[in-house]
Amino acid sequence: MRIPMDTMKNELECILLRVGLKKKRAALCASIFTENSLVGVVSHGLNRFPLFIDYIRQGYVNPKACAQLSSSHGAWELYNGHLGPGPLNAYDCTRRVMELARMHGIGCVGLSNTNHWMRGGYFGWMAAKAGIAFISWTNTKPNMPPWGGVDCRVGNNPLVIAVPREKGPVVLDMAMTQFSIGRMETARQAGEDLPIDGGYDVNGNLTCNPNAILSTNRPLPIGYWKGSGLAILLDLLATLVSGGLTTHQIGRREIEHGVSQVFIGIDISQSASLSVVNQVVDQLIADLRTTTPVEHNGMILYPGERVQRTRKENLEKGIPVDANIWNQVISIL
Amino acid sequence: MRIPMDTMKNELECILLRVGLKKKRAALCASIFTENSLVGVVSHGLNRFPLFIDYIRQGYVNPKACAQLSSSHGAWELYNGHLGPGPLNAYDCTRRVMELARMHGIGCVGLSNTNHWMRGGYFGWMAAKAGIAFISWTNTKPNMPPWGGVDCRVGNNPLVIAVPREKGPVVLDMAMTQFSIGRMETARQAGEDLPIDGGYDVNGNLTCNPNAILSTNRPLPIGYWKGSGLAILLDLLATLVSGGLTTHQIGRREIEHGVSQVFIGIDISQSASLSVVNQVVDQLIADLRTTTPVEHNGMILYPGERVQRTRKENLEKGIPVDANIWNQVISIL
Repeated sequence: MRIPMDTMKNELECILLRVGLKKKRAALCASIFTENSLVGVVSHGLNRFPLFIDYIRQGYVNPKACAQLSSSHGAWELYNGHLGPGPLNAYDCTRRVMELARMHGIGCVGLSNTNHWMRGGYFGWMAAKAGIAFISWTNTKPNMPPWGGVDCRVGNNPLVIAVPREKGPVVLDMAMTQFSIGRMETARQAGEDLPIDGGYDVNGNLTCNPNAILSTNRPLPIGYWKGSGLAILLDLLATLVSGGLTTHQIGRREIEHGVSQVFIGIDISQSASLSVVNQVVDQLIADLRTTTPVEHNGMILYPGERVQRTRKENLEKGIPVDANIWNQVISIL
Repeated sequence: MRIPMDTMKNELECILLRVGLKKKRAALCASIFTENSLVGVVSHGLNRFPLFIDYIRQGYVNPKACAQLSSSHGAWELYNGHLGPGPLNAYDCTRRVMELARMHGIGCVGLSNTNHWMRGGYFGWMAAKAGIAFISWTNTKPNMPPWGGVDCRVGNNPLVIAVPREKGPVVLDMAMTQFSIGRMETARQAGEDLPIDGGYDVNGNLTCNPNAILSTNRPLPIGYWKGSGLAILLDLLATLVSGGLTTHQIGRREIEHGVSQVFIGIDISQSASLSVVNQVVDQLIADLRTTTPVEHNGMILYPGERVQRTRKENLEKGIPVDANIWNQVISIL
């Protein structure tokens, strides 16, 4: 089942108005959820929308709150998200960090007391399309054991890095677990193994079996000790740069809310013309393609390439949706 | 065999003076190499020193060159390293980014045309001990296949992130390959397997056998496609932020020289007192320790903890050195 982009956006917008978002904010929030589904990240698009509405109704997300400047230190500013909608707070902070980058070459916004931004890559595309190189991450509740331990104490803390390019930016959007909970649940429902080891079974052995990993709650950090260390540092920086909560502190709450985020932008146009940037990035991509592929007729994709392809296809054909979830969403209204 | 720190430093300093470094620069460069050995990273301390001297003698490293400001955009500055000694260029840029952070809250230095910085963690410790949160990385020659390909087209691009803390900073220093070439060679010489899969054998299967991986030259990126993507983005940013060369362009040279680096500092003391910073970091570490360890009596270490322990031990007992390498070094003079 496919839904035209505008249909989805209008539907979500009506619901968001009903739960208390103001007109312009509802439109923006709906367009972010729709865009995330459009590019194929349905887990943080339509599929997550019912939970987002639920969090508003339960009072975890304040539909009217906006991020507010709490202190300013030149090119670095701290904002309090006042538990507003995560995608809107992150949108506002991305816009602000782009301004700071244009003023100071580099800018940084720390955002405390905010909520799940859904798909971090959205903000990477937003900045890169405006010519700004972008680094951003969020912390999360504890959902991954630190290296050497069996209990979840570390967040999977998604990291986004984006670089402008005329033919489509290069955008990395990755969490610190090898596979997300969503990906493992999808594999379990399909009765399939993961393509590579994704965590530990009850005997402490690495396994591709999603069921075994979901039972032990021991997903694997990318690069074992390395991803564990990276997640710890991203959490510390997010907390100190925003004045917000650590993963540990978020984990004491009954559900994940009040996370900390960092947005860094660099206005690379101040040093290199767009044509030079395009040349650097195009050359790098062309060089990647010269490697012999592992699989016959395989192709080396750059980060963000699949998103661009999926977006084009879904713009033409409509956004694929799970009929049950679509019916669940339209029945919210 | 152990050598007192001062003996090593004095020996290296004499040699550096002989190959053309000026007095103060020779002392600083010797202290960086010595510190790297002192904390146990001998591969980028004493053991790499003969190659460093060789590169000076062959003209790849200019012993007298210093990084020079090429353009300034407020909180972001670009420096040309003029192919000077990598550790000294990185030291100067770390010092400069600390100044920029104090002036603007956040600062960024892009360094082009520089050389191997040896151990990136050195600069993380340097910034964090001065109260500056720090993010930095370097690109390298191609030494890792991109995900989906078999030929080395991507660098392992080490990344450093550091956060201040009174009892010792938290410092992550990691390359994008699961294991370094040095680590795999050590395992091969010892006739041992790697503790986990580190790359691919000739049949395209994952293997722990270092010999098999060194033969195919297909080391594994951390997190498979994720580490490959992260390495690509770090390379692009290093190039665009510094105006320097990409991994691809460095790979066209006969040996690795003229790499690109990024230094970002945030003066977190402008928003949080040192006691608040200590409290945040100490609490996070204390929480990590509450997990049940995988191994009986195992301990969860935070990034940088082992370095601190090794440093203390070697300060007391002297720096462990390979007698052959030590003899090789003292015969340079």
